[in-house]
Amino acid sequence: MSNSGIKMIVAVIRPDKLGDVKQSLAEAGAPSLTVTNVSGRGSQPAKKGQWRGEEYVVDLHQKVKIECVVADIPSEDVVEAIKEGAHTGEKGDGKIFVLPVESATQIRTGKEGAEAV
Amino acid sequence: MSNSGIKMIVAVIRPDKLGDVKQSLAEAGAPSLTVTNVSGRGSQPAKKGQWRGEEYVVDLHQKVKIECVVADIPSEDVVEAIKEGAHTGEKGDGKIFVLPVESATQIRTGKEGAEAV
Amino acid sequence: MSNSGIKMIVAVIRPDKLGDVKQSLAEAGAPSLTVTNVSGRGSQPAKKGQWRGEEYVVDLHQKVKIECVVADIPSEDVVEAIKEGAHTGEKGDGKIFVLPVESATQIRTGKEGAEAV
Ligand SMILES: Nc1ncnc2c1ncn2[C@@H]1O[C@H](COP(=O)(O)OP(=O)(O)OP(=O)(O)O)[C@@H](O)[C@H]1O
Ligand SMILES: Nc1ncnc2c1ncn2[C@@H]1O[C@H](COP(=O)(O)OP(=O)(O)OP(=O)(O)O)[C@@H](O)[C@H]1O
Ligand SMILES: Nc1ncnc2c1ncn2[C@@H]1O[C@H](COP(=O)(O)OP(=O)(O)OP(=O)(O)O)[C@@H](O)[C@H]1O
Ligand SMILES: [Mg+2]
Ligand SMILES: [Mg+2]
Ligand SMILES: [Mg+2]
Repeated sequence: MSNSGIKMIVAVIRPDKLGDVKQSLAEAGAPSLTVTNVSGRGSQPAKKGQWRGEEYVVDLHQKVKIECVVADIPSEDVVEAIKEGAHTGEKGDGKIFVLPVESATQIRTGKEGAEAV
Repeated sequence: MSNSGIKMIVAVIRPDKLGDVKQSLAEAGAPSLTVTNVSGRGSQPAKKGQWRGEEYVVDLHQKVKIECVVADIPSEDVVEAIKEGAHTGEKGDGKIFVLPVESATQIRTGKEGAEAV
Repeated sequence: MSNSGIKMIVAVIRPDKLGDVKQSLAEAGAPSLTVTNVSGRGSQPAKKGQWRGEEYVVDLHQKVKIECVVADIPSEDVVEAIKEGAHTGEKGDGKIFVLPVESATQIRTGKEGAEAV
């Protein structure tokens, strides 16, 4: 079931790092991906700002979520490529999660499994 | 743990196929779904375009992501319904991934497991 | 593999309950989350409306998706916190799904596993 060897790598990164991550993924042989605009917060406390003299709290930051499903490339290599593209060293660089995938299908061809990814 | 029998089917499809996929899912007995606007790329190379005389590269295409959690219906039937609704035969038709789900809760009733899906 | 003990809790809730859910998650010790604007339908039939004298069918409702990855807190506690924040008792309150996560990485520090969540 979960032994298909197919993985979904989910990464939440800074929006301005999307270009670098797309390039590092392509170089790692994993060019296919799905991108979603999201917002979120990590473990840092909410940031206070000022707008027209009013104080407000920024508690959700704009981020980009990348989903990348791979079969023939180790998920560790994909994680490494994303880290390389997304790293600045400042708080808020993001997270990478690896989830098991039981099956994959390419809609055009009907191919299943590793071939479909 | 992963033996709940509950699955999340994640499909990335053409936006103009959403109506057909909603209908084929309802006919398959799986009407419930969550829809997200996404962009992405598969294995095809970036497409070149022209805008006001400038060449540019379209490397992310607008797509729609569907998430559909099922318990009593085999995930294969859901995959089949999505393929049926989303297929055109042209490159870019999309992908379907099946992920294991450990538990499900319906917030209104507090029901858990297959009943909650 | 799936025995990392790390879980992704995915919840689809009413948009106007996001504030309450963020607060109940923070109180449960799980402040980190990713938020996506989505639309969807559950098991209820499509709702009919009127617009400029024309009848139309609302079949997708605006919702908010929350993704919350935890390692040191039981996923049951996170589910409980989301239920508490999101519950109104009316149809459409939403669903909560728990998915297994095989690994987690914090991009800034390179930390892996429970420490990275
Ligand atoms: N545990 C988590 N569950 C879900 N999403 C998360 C989690 N942790 C982080 N995220 C997402 O990643 C984004 C960036 O997180 P961030 O890099 O600030 O994490 P952090 O743990 O606070 O690390 P840092 O100390 O480097 O800031 C968040 O805005 C959120 O969207
Ligand atoms: N491996 C993958 N991981 C994540 N998302 C993917 C993956 N493959 C495809 N997608 C998503 O599906 C969308 C459509 O992919 P597409 O149908 O072009 O795949 P393909 O493998 O190139 O097949 P085709 O040759 O039929 O075009 C992409 O824009 C992307 O959002
Ligand atoms: N099985 C499912 N798969 C994917 N998304 C779902 C599923 N069920 C519900 N959702 C998402 O949750 C949202 C809210 O669902 P909803 O609360 O209406 O579920 P329901 O089963 O109809 O319960 P209720 O009877 O309380 O309305 C939907 O709009 C959809 O985005
Ligand atoms: Mg942070
Ligand atoms: Mg393609
Ligand atoms: Mg409903």
